[in-house]
Amino acid sequence: MKLNELGEDEVVRRLTRGLNLDRRVVVGPGDDCAVVKTAGDLQLLKTDCIIEGIHFRPNADPMWVGWKAMCRSISDVASMGGLPLDALVTVAIRSDAEFEWLKKLYRGLRKAASTYRVNLVGGETARSPGPVFLSVCLTGMVEKGKYVSRSGGKKGDWLFVTGRLGGSIDGKHLRFSPRVREARWLVGRFPIHAMMDLSDGLGSDLPRLASASGVGFEVALENLPLNKGCVPENAVRDGEDYELLFAVPRAVKSRLELEWKKAFPRLQLTPIGQLVDSGHHEFEQKGFDHFRGRA
Amino acid sequence: MKLNELGEDEVVRRLTRGLNLDRRVVVGPGDDCAVVKTAGDLQLLKTDCIIEGIHFRPNADPMWVGWKAMCRSISDVASMGGLPLDALVTVAIRSDAEFEWLKKLYRGLRKAASTYRVNLVGGETARSPGPVFLSVCLTGMVEKGKYVSRSGGKKGDWLFVTGRLGGSIDGKHLRFSPRVREARWLVGRFPIHAMMDLSDGLGSDLPRLASASGVGFEVALENLPLNKGCVPENAVRDGEDYELLFAVPRAVKSRLELEWKKAFPRLQLTPIGQLVDSGHHEFEQKGFDHFRGRA
Repeated sequence: MKLNELGEDEVVRRLTRGLNLDRRVVVGPGDDCAVVKTAGDLQLLKTDCIIEGIHFRPNADPMWVGWKAMCRSISDVASMGGLPLDALVTVAIRSDAEFEWLKKLYRGLRKAASTYRVNLVGGETARSPGPVFLSVCLTGMVEKGKYVSRSGGKKGDWLFVTGRLGGSIDGKHLRFSPRVREARWLVGRFPIHAMMDLSDGLGSDLPRLASASGVGFEVALENLPLNKGCVPENAVRDGEDYELLFAVPRAVKSRLELEWKKAFPRLQLTPIGQLVDSGHHEFEQKGFDHFRGRA
Repeated sequence: MKLNELGEDEVVRRLTRGLNLDRRVVVGPGDDCAVVKTAGDLQLLKTDCIIEGIHFRPNADPMWVGWKAMCRSISDVASMGGLPLDALVTVAIRSDAEFEWLKKLYRGLRKAASTYRVNLVGGETARSPGPVFLSVCLTGMVEKGKYVSRSGGKKGDWLFVTGRLGGSIDGKHLRFSPRVREARWLVGRFPIHAMMDLSDGLGSDLPRLASASGVGFEVALENLPLNKGCVPENAVRDGEDYELLFAVPRAVKSRLELEWKKAFPRLQLTPIGQLVDSGHHEFEQKGFDHFRGRA
């Protein structure tokens, strides 16, 4: 079987089936981060890579490529309710590449690290004849009572997204802001049942959250908060929004909306739909019913 | 400036100059692992990558490629006196690659993880048009009183290496055993001033330990423990031995040699030379004096 016949989720599922994990491991492969017990708090572990020609164009500004690489992992830590702490960076690059390019890349990595108070504690620069490969491994912490996985969503929960979706290829896919402060605020004040960051598009990510939680979903496409020039399908398919998607009990919906407006007056928060009975995966739109996500 | 004109050490030095690291960071970039304070113990963080065509041949047995990738990071954790804990694995590979190859790779990763009691808690499989890229990010722990960096060597210390050196390309570079048990035994019983694992060859690694410690060294080439068919130059230049190199005070030399023999009767431990005044970097051999390391 070839990898592209199986698809990434199935490849990972087959490779990690039946792993021996000791009791310190709270969440293993498959969520935004791994979660491991340490004395007191939980530790979050995440690694994420971006590759020239796939995640960024060869002529992209290396500063923003570095920013993106660091912020993608930070976004995953945020989506578990955590604070990012320490990062290791791996760059594989042709040995005849210009140092200036790498320096700009690191400027972006360092800018992101300092913006989100991450320690860049190490890493590696390796020679590679292939495309530039950039990987960031990040640790984080979250208090035991605050961590949020994808799997705690319940039937009847309201689904919210932060910010606006779609069209990230126009620039946001490089220059986004991971929602660390917002996620910490949420887990400190509300019973967040499930949360993840939107990296592959609502049409891929929401079915993952729903499946992990053992429920279905209903989303009204006309309610999706859209970036300028976008139609709902962009929100569903484009990906790389790096906004938070989360589920909260129906009872706290109004209080959440009210308090959010005071705390983050400049960042939209939108109820996009609800979690429903398992098996029901639906993006609803007039004249375009039963649009199914890619997953 | 091109990267190959600067060399890896200089590239890393320039990129990580003046990093803002908070007080939790005990050791930042440049040692075998980063060291970060957590409640109670210290946390070790390491990431290491291997690339097809550079660190392994395209026709190498994927099982041993996986073993190697995991064990390289484990070896670094061992060399700080630590215990490995949790690993994240990143594989970038062509999307038309055979799943069977990846499965064997994971068999090696998992075998190494289970041998050294490492939890494989997550990672990523990415499409890449380039050579196979395999990265392992590993956490570890070490008690505050036991961690050993490269920088604590003192003038007069004896230098020891475990096992035998040279000729790793014949197979040991894939099928080595990181010295976790031995390193833990050492840091639990002896005042180890400095330690590292030999990954680039004694001729590159010993000057790094000496420079980090602000001292020089004298090594008698005829005393080096050699693998079958090797001459001293192999021990100096070949690399990928993954044995421990460490410095201990002269006063404990005899007791260490005696107790080692009882604890590890099947693994050689060899005093290869001493740390001396700064600036004196010397591999001595009859008729072949002043052979300088590559660093």
